[in-house]
Amino acid sequence: MLELADILEARERVRETARHTPLSYSHTYSEMTGAEVHLKLENFQRTGAFKIRGATNRIATLSAAEKEAGVVTASAGNHAQGVALAASRAGVDSKIVMPEDAPISKVKATRSYGAEIVLHGADYAEAAERAHEIEREEGRTYVHAFDDEYVMAGQGTLGLEILEDCPDVDTVVVPIGGGGLIGGIATAIEAKAPDVRVIGVQSEGASSVADSLEKGEVVSLDGVETIADGIATRSVGERTFPIIDERVDEVVTVSDEEVAMAVVYLLERSKTMVEGAGAVPLAALLFERFDVDPGETVVPVLSGGNIDLNLLTTVIVRGLVETGRYLKIRTVLKDRPGALEELLAVISAHRANIYAIQHDRTSRDIGMSDTEVEIDLETRGHEHVADLIAAIEERGYEVEALV
Amino acid sequence: MLELADILEARERVRETARHTPLSYSHTYSEMTGAEVHLKLENFQRTGAFKIRGATNRIATLSAAEKEAGVVTASAGNHAQGVALAASRAGVDSKIVMPEDAPISKVKATRSYGAEIVLHGADYAEAAERAHEIEREEGRTYVHAFDDEYVMAGQGTLGLEILEDCPDVDTVVVPIGGGGLIGGIATAIEAKAPDVRVIGVQSEGASSVADSLEKGEVVSLDGVETIADGIATRSVGERTFPIIDERVDEVVTVSDEEVAMAVVYLLERSKTMVEGAGAVPLAALLFERFDVDPGETVVPVLSGGNIDLNLLTTVIVRGLVETGRYLKIRTVLKDRPGALEELLAVISAHRANIYAIQHDRTSRDIGMSDTEVEIDLETRGHEHVADLIAAIEERGYEVEALV
Repeated sequence: MLELADILEARERVRETARHTPLSYSHTYSEMTGAEVHLKLENFQRTGAFKIRGATNRIATLSAAEKEAGVVTASAGNHAQGVALAASRAGVDSKIVMPEDAPISKVKATRSYGAEIVLHGADYAEAAERAHEIEREEGRTYVHAFDDEYVMAGQGTLGLEILEDCPDVDTVVVPIGGGGLIGGIATAIEAKAPDVRVIGVQSEGASSVADSLEKGEVVSLDGVETIADGIATRSVGERTFPIIDERVDEVVTVSDEEVAMAVVYLLERSKTMVEGAGAVPLAALLFERFDVDPGETVVPVLSGGNIDLNLLTTVIVRGLVETGRYLKIRTVLKDRPGALEELLAVISAHRANIYAIQHDRTSRDIGMSDTEVEIDLETRGHEHVADLIAAIEERGYEVEALV
Repeated sequence: MLELADILEARERVRETARHTPLSYSHTYSEMTGAEVHLKLENFQRTGAFKIRGATNRIATLSAAEKEAGVVTASAGNHAQGVALAASRAGVDSKIVMPEDAPISKVKATRSYGAEIVLHGADYAEAAERAHEIEREEGRTYVHAFDDEYVMAGQGTLGLEILEDCPDVDTVVVPIGGGGLIGGIATAIEAKAPDVRVIGVQSEGASSVADSLEKGEVVSLDGVETIADGIATRSVGERTFPIIDERVDEVVTVSDEEVAMAVVYLLERSKTMVEGAGAVPLAALLFERFDVDPGETVVPVLSGGNIDLNLLTTVIVRGLVETGRYLKIRTVLKDRPGALEELLAVISAHRANIYAIQHDRTSRDIGMSDTEVEIDLETRGHEHVADLIAAIEERGYEVEALV
């Protein structure tokens, strides 16, 4: 099993390539929670995520012949960029297999770090199959995204940084996808500061760990569904699971809505871009998924910042909805001149700003003489939403809030 | 006129309340421009923007009697939060007048810093009028957002930080709204490092400075229109203008599209949230609004990060459109079964992801037997957009790209 010595060795190998990322005290979240909250800003890591740490350590430990033969992996995410940059820095050739519809931004970024990109297959599984073929055909070493002790040891260097920068830490909160990051961090912390709690966080829609812990073996989900794509894995690894079992104090889950709100808080209050997977630790803290004592020092690990911007706009809108600042309503108007105007007068009297209106006379759900209207509104919080809906209902409209 | 000594004094007064914000080397923008680019991350300042510096200095220089009487100002933006926190820190009572429809998030944030909020008037002008009434009625000191030497001196401390953290700096790039920030920075730099260039940047839709410089006096615009709301001012100040005239090397402008792209770059590549006004210096650098020598050290001042999230989603979509990653097209289908399906087959063969479809048979612009369809698509860059449009046109459709 992974030990502290592995991580200390990794630290020497990783130092040149990966950044020691900042730890930043947050007045905002400290006030919200009563804890002393320090954010580990791993989203500022090279390539935008922690994966560069593990990839660098893995590649550094290859033999001369293995280095000569190069490496291969499959990923359309942070691991791809981590392997690409780690390999370039070590002068090792890398091939990364990505599904054919991988976002062009990811393809470009990974290529810019020096990897050869192979586009293959409709999904990750098909890309991984091709990567393993390349492994065999070309004698390259396959760099696993998490289920590898060298990879875990590299990720564990992040835990050493937390202990160094925040000696008073009581609790470290870490996302769990495959378990590589938390495996490394928990090992470092258990060895150096055994009283510090390590809490793992999964997305509700990809939460295999609770079941796995209960059964005492790796359980794989049939499918996953979460906006936190960086931790959308069906199971943890065979090598990471025993470490989670033994060294992680508690594993909790958060919903997509909570993740969206955490991403939005981080943007609005902390001015920092964190991807869904990187925001789950803060979500778990803010939505009280574990107990915190007053004044306890808590470090959420914001593990990455590579969010697709199309997804980001969706996440922001979800975050706005959850905080009462975006409202979509549906109602039915009598189909006569002035009906829409009357409704809009109520809305403008409440100073809600209109984004969009859809007006449909052909909907089958309503009477022939009626018109269905959907209105997207900018609102100012839950109270404003409640007041506005009450005012519209007072005028005799039935209002359905759609989001 | 403002002198270095004023700024050095301000520094002592401001030290306790305002943060010395980080300067961060950017590999990305250095590579893009051939310059050595260091970002001044003033978006990490307390209250999310530089305004706290000037407000703190202004309040610190009040007499005991003036402090006792309190301060007042009008603002729905960064200045409101800056004055509120600066006053609280100094134990001074503050009233901030905001227009009645000020975003609830701004009202809440300003109140949380300890100010009393007065909601008054339909716009900034009406709020400012009320604030001046309060100034007279209650004997409070009005804290101007920019046209005040103490305020400028406070903003100038940001210039000292740049010189200290980046002694090799060649060029500093600064947004211009009212001119307080650039007035302070240019004064500090001219006195301490006269060879360093100071470049001012305005939004095209709010660019009064070029005319003012030409006429040799403050010119006020009839109206302003820009997504960079923090610098949406009709004119610079009577006190800031002579300093800009004398100490700023060059003033340039950027378009809203360029600002949107800069905001998107900062999110995607730098993982940092910067508001439109704070992104104009980077936009001017990236879109070559001024000359840069290879290897020149350039510091764009990212002056604030308080962007309204509703506006942010709009900005992101604009940024995506400009970078070829969001496409909205309109075309006309024969109104018969299968027509839409045929079009969608072309789109899916090009692996463009569909966000939304609007299908309208009642548009008056088209023949009775035709159907107009608008489709919002996720695309993968300008080449992908061009390929896709060519393929649709090849099938005989006329395509209009709407954004």
